[in-house]
Amino acid sequence: MEAMSSPERKRTGRRPGSTDTREQIAVAARALFAEVGYEQTTYRRVAASAGVDPALVVHFFGSKEELFRHVTALPPAIADAVEHIADGPRETVGRRLAELVVDSLENPASRALLLARIRATTSHPEAASLVRENVTHDLGRLASALSDDQPETRAVLAGVQVVGLTFTRYVLRAEPLASMSASDIVDYLAPVFQHYLVEPLAT
Amino acid sequence: MEAMSSPERKRTGRRPGSTDTREQIAVAARALFAEVGYEQTTYRRVAASAGVDPALVVHFFGSKEELFRHVTALPPAIADAVEHIADGPRETVGRRLAELVVDSLENPASRALLLARIRATTSHPEAASLVRENVTHDLGRLASALSDDQPETRAVLAGVQVVGLTFTRYVLRAEPLASMSASDIVDYLAPVFQHYLVEPLAT
Repeated sequence: MEAMSSPERKRTGRRPGSTDTREQIAVAARALFAEVGYEQTTYRRVAASAGVDPALVVHFFGSKEELFRHVTALPPAIADAVEHIADGPRETVGRRLAELVVDSLENPASRALLLARIRATTSHPEAASLVRENVTHDLGRLASALSDDQPETRAVLAGVQVVGLTFTRYVLRAEPLASMSASDIVDYLAPVFQHYLVEPLAT
Repeated sequence: MEAMSSPERKRTGRRPGSTDTREQIAVAARALFAEVGYEQTTYRRVAASAGVDPALVVHFFGSKEELFRHVTALPPAIADAVEHIADGPRETVGRRLAELVVDSLENPASRALLLARIRATTSHPEAASLVRENVTHDLGRLASALSDDQPETRAVLAGVQVVGLTFTRYVLRAEPLASMSASDIVDYLAPVFQHYLVEPLAT
């Protein structure tokens, strides 16, 4: 399911019309969740924005929870990349995570996904619980692959950094962060991810 | 103005009835902004929650922007404490900031203030611009007092950490952070604040 809706998915060639429609709906829904939040993202608005009949949204995604869960799951390409960060040299895991996070935020589709998570979380408790699962899942496997010492704590602290960056740069738009170059942000975040992922946690 | 509405203010004894009413309104408004966001916090709801006439809300605070700005400004006691962090030993500034941030979030009044900022920012562009000013102001003076090297960048990076913590612990409620003890959080955040405030920023 997730592979089919991701912008990074490999197209299979099977039932292309249906797959494209599904993908159009997912893109429209992701943008709406990011812009107007969970409550105001209705089947009708998603359908209008995707240029399809509202019944098709129900057909492809069922409940609104399912639609939200689906469009805010990390694309498989990014989820894979998070896991593979553990494969490289240990001294530079922080930098590789910083690069991946910043790249994901520079890409409009994955940025929309992360903003959708933030907006929905503030407005809707049910969405918060879906996002909670995702956040733990996304970084937890990486932290576990890197350290036996409190991997869950390490994952959530790295998550604090990702959430803080996304919110401060793209929602609050606080300067000088809002105008900062991607490579400067990578430079600033790398040592902190390195600390949270593999260094002794408390001093 | 700010001194009069803060829970930490020293009471002057002058017109206590009026001051108390003003404070009641501020407390009610702060809680509503934190719970339901900027848009849905109306004069009428604030007045009902404070048990006063809506005209009094207008009388004391004028516009909704002014009311929001007022109840989401840091209480003078906290703003003073942020500045005085620079006075102690340089090796432990990060820990002192972590303690102050965590103490402020453990206190229901200042937690409501920080949550009000986050909720309003996601829902209302005008509120975002008010919060933006506050965030820069709160940490900017501390960073400038500590370092001549990119103090604005240091302030906003420390802000990323504060925003990320507030959001992840209190809005998203991601574990293990949501259930973590205050002293553990101080231990985990202290080295990162230390890094952002006074260590070389990029490695």
